[in-house]
Amino acid sequence: MTRIIMHGCNGKMGQVISRIVEDDKDAVIVAGIDVNDNIANPYPVFTDMNSIDVEGDVIIDFSTAKAVPSLIDYAKSKKLPVVLCTTGLNDEQLNIVNEASKEIAILLSANMSLGVNLLLNLVKKAAKTLTAANFDIEIIEKHHNQKIDAPSGTALAFADSINESLNNEYSYTYDRTIVKAKRDSKEIGIHSVRGGTIVGEHSIIFAGKDEVVELNHNALSKDIFGVGAVNAAKFLSQKSKGMYDMQNVIEGN
Amino acid sequence: MTRIIMHGCNGKMGQVISRIVEDDKDAVIVAGIDVNDNIANPYPVFTDMNSIDVEGDVIIDFSTAKAVPSLIDYAKSKKLPVVLCTTGLNDEQLNIVNEASKEIAILLSANMSLGVNLLLNLVKKAAKTLTAANFDIEIIEKHHNQKIDAPSGTALAFADSINESLNNEYSYTYDRTIVKAKRDSKEIGIHSVRGGTIVGEHSIIFAGKDEVVELNHNALSKDIFGVGAVNAAKFLSQKSKGMYDMQNVIEGN
Amino acid sequence: MTRIIMHGCNGKMGQVISRIVEDDKDAVIVAGIDVNDNIANPYPVFTDMNSIDVEGDVIIDFSTAKAVPSLIDYAKSKKLPVVLCTTGLNDEQLNIVNEASKEIAILLSANMSLGVNLLLNLVKKAAKTLTAANFDIEIIEKHHNQKIDAPSGTALAFADSINESLNNEYSYTYDRTIVKAKRDSKEIGIHSVRGGTIVGEHSIIFAGKDEVVELNHNALSKDIFGVGAVNAAKFLSQKSKGMYDMQNVIEGN
Amino acid sequence: MTRIIMHGCNGKMGQVISRIVEDDKDAVIVAGIDVNDNIANPYPVFTDMNSIDVEGDVIIDFSTAKAVPSLIDYAKSKKLPVVLCTTGLNDEQLNIVNEASKEIAILLSANMSLGVNLLLNLVKKAAKTLTAANFDIEIIEKHHNQKIDAPSGTALAFADSINESLNNEYSYTYDRTIVKAKRDSKEIGIHSVRGGTIVGEHSIIFAGKDEVVELNHNALSKDIFGVGAVNAAKFLSQKSKGMYDMQNVIEGN
Repeated sequence: MTRIIMHGCNGKMGQVISRIVEDDKDAVIVAGIDVNDNIANPYPVFTDMNSIDVEGDVIIDFSTAKAVPSLIDYAKSKKLPVVLCTTGLNDEQLNIVNEASKEIAILLSANMSLGVNLLLNLVKKAAKTLTAANFDIEIIEKHHNQKIDAPSGTALAFADSINESLNNEYSYTYDRTIVKAKRDSKEIGIHSVRGGTIVGEHSIIFAGKDEVVELNHNALSKDIFGVGAVNAAKFLSQKSKGMYDMQNVIEGN
Repeated sequence: MTRIIMHGCNGKMGQVISRIVEDDKDAVIVAGIDVNDNIANPYPVFTDMNSIDVEGDVIIDFSTAKAVPSLIDYAKSKKLPVVLCTTGLNDEQLNIVNEASKEIAILLSANMSLGVNLLLNLVKKAAKTLTAANFDIEIIEKHHNQKIDAPSGTALAFADSINESLNNEYSYTYDRTIVKAKRDSKEIGIHSVRGGTIVGEHSIIFAGKDEVVELNHNALSKDIFGVGAVNAAKFLSQKSKGMYDMQNVIEGN
Repeated sequence: MTRIIMHGCNGKMGQVISRIVEDDKDAVIVAGIDVNDNIANPYPVFTDMNSIDVEGDVIIDFSTAKAVPSLIDYAKSKKLPVVLCTTGLNDEQLNIVNEASKEIAILLSANMSLGVNLLLNLVKKAAKTLTAANFDIEIIEKHHNQKIDAPSGTALAFADSINESLNNEYSYTYDRTIVKAKRDSKEIGIHSVRGGTIVGEHSIIFAGKDEVVELNHNALSKDIFGVGAVNAAKFLSQKSKGMYDMQNVIEGN
Repeated sequence: MTRIIMHGCNGKMGQVISRIVEDDKDAVIVAGIDVNDNIANPYPVFTDMNSIDVEGDVIIDFSTAKAVPSLIDYAKSKKLPVVLCTTGLNDEQLNIVNEASKEIAILLSANMSLGVNLLLNLVKKAAKTLTAANFDIEIIEKHHNQKIDAPSGTALAFADSINESLNNEYSYTYDRTIVKAKRDSKEIGIHSVRGGTIVGEHSIIFAGKDEVVELNHNALSKDIFGVGAVNAAKFLSQKSKGMYDMQNVIEGN
């Protein structure tokens, strides 16, 4: 039984995880931390994490970037692993996280879903094999019309994962209407579709001479990010220190 | 039997049409016109159209914008209908074409394929019904990596067709990475994917609350544009004057 | 303000509709009917519809086929329009419904979503135009792994809608592995994919010489059927008798 | 420079390969073998392979199953590697091929395209990771309306490749309309769409709780099978004996 401390328990994803853990025989939330204490939860919620008086095995964090440093301090003091799902950390915050991983286990991932993390791995192999045969690479991501940033962090993670496997020789292109020119072979086109309530779709397209390979992921609900976080928590609760990502969870090592 | 005069017979599409007509029991090319006379054709080819000494019922034109005015002059003098497949006409050239349609029948279309022209019609109905329920509209087009312009003329034709049915209240967006903001409901996102040898794909996406409607067209070869041009020629050979497009061919009126 | 009586209010879809109506300024549920009275609702629930003591404008029914005849009796006695979303009616039950439509307004639809009903209309036009050019027709539907019947009622509705526009000359094919033979041009292939928690996807494919047209619908949640039912209720509350379907709601007539 | 002997040079794929090799600086066809000698080729064609009087490095075979045994005999006598693209070999013919691979290098593949062979590899990894999280597996293949067999050999190769990585515990389902029952988790649904002139599309779908992963391949022309065969020939000309497939070509070992 993995005992989870949920940081940001009263946010949207915190509540999703609370619901998921209720149906999980192998995990339990023993405490929540949130600045807002306005929701009834089946576990005690603390506005000040230093007041927590129960024992946990691992922290899941779905909060805000600026709340991360003090959480990391707390985790170090308690020797607790942290599944860090908050995105948008700046360089200074990332530095704090990296430093802390010398003392505690930290898992950091741009997207917590199993499918996306599997594909982040498969695209590397595809990119190496197919660009050797002059295939071009394009990424299309689709999200709901309330999303403010573009491209999605996950689309960038795909592009970076591909680029890394290709010696970082590729640049990213977001708009082809501004120049009249043939496509450069060393570019990755990234396209951000916004509409309705689309939860999240990502297509990685490899187009070559007379054949096209596509790797697609379609998220039907945000639950998948919660399920991934809980799986990551179970995995990370067995680790004492170091930096991990969802690939480690998938590979189980 | 429709007797076709093929303007631009030795270009890529001229040769495609020559091949298609050879297999067509109801049409024949009786003469070709081309500045280059370097290809053996089963019909006489004239570098000067005024030398043509055979009778035709209709002209198909797949040439260049600047060759269009003199072709139109010739067609007027012979009272011949013209299927005008050349794209990229400027305002002056378009004006000449429009004026000529008072005397002869002219068919002008951004894309000659049956499927695209059917969808140009269906998207109007879809746009009216679905935007009334607050659906957002996005267009993705995919073409080969040698295509220089973006977006495709056909993608713009889809956007314009939709916009026309919505009182032209929509603007077109090509890049969402430059502003951090929610999507405006009165915009059509247009995305140009380029890769490999993709002949031409167009997706018109209507994304609403918890449902997405997509109308897609996929061209497997350029033959479809030739087939459309020959069908248009058969249709137009029965008309004496006026401006037509592929919708008329589809509707048969 | 449309006053709705919700038949089957404590079922899955009844609760979805209850939630949707709470956010709708122009509709209200004034009474529920259900054999189970185990859920707290913001409106009175009656296990016996004859006990209802409030006035309504229209009934929405999401119950079971066998409960439909007595509901129709009740509606006739009160002169109330009925949005009939229950599926799987047998011939006798359908007969009762059809007879009743001489006295009251009834709306019957295989699928309540706006997008599906729009496409049920567009596929007719597409089928007529494209089969004239020898396009083949195939339908793929995808649903979750708990769905027992195949093909989906909506896939059959698409096939029937197409077939009706083609003089009912087409037969339906579900398995091509059992005969080694070329495709018959007068068949519609129907394919039922089952997996995970897919809510419902339908693709209608028209494949011709070198071009493919696809009309797709993707349902992201069952809410869309509830939204459609509420819109239908608003529409039908203005009608005194006759048989309607969602096309009438879309067209507003 | 790889010197190719093309067995079946005057068949459809033989001619495709002839055209591809003409544009290839590193390969040349030095002789063709075909029962029909009715096409002008830029290389000598032999109706009797024993009359061949030029030296080659490797044979590409795109012929018929019954022609394979005598070709294998010839290859053994000349110690020539064979890229065997002919499909539909029976057990006896396969046995001859396997035995011969103790003396000469033979490459056998259900599909010669780079993309398909890459995906045949990636689906194994995907299947192992995703079925561990209870994802269901479905395959859709689409081909032209003249194709007689169903499912495609490539679809079966995908199913077999997946099944092999899952201890062959899965059965294949082609028709869900004949039984009213929930999907079995240990089945792979395979769906054969036929229409128009579709060259070949394959989708491998992994559908789990609230997420769907799809790996797709789309062939735009049969050229890709020829390009794969030529690449295989270059690779195999360096091998003296053993059984190979396109994975070896991709991996370069």
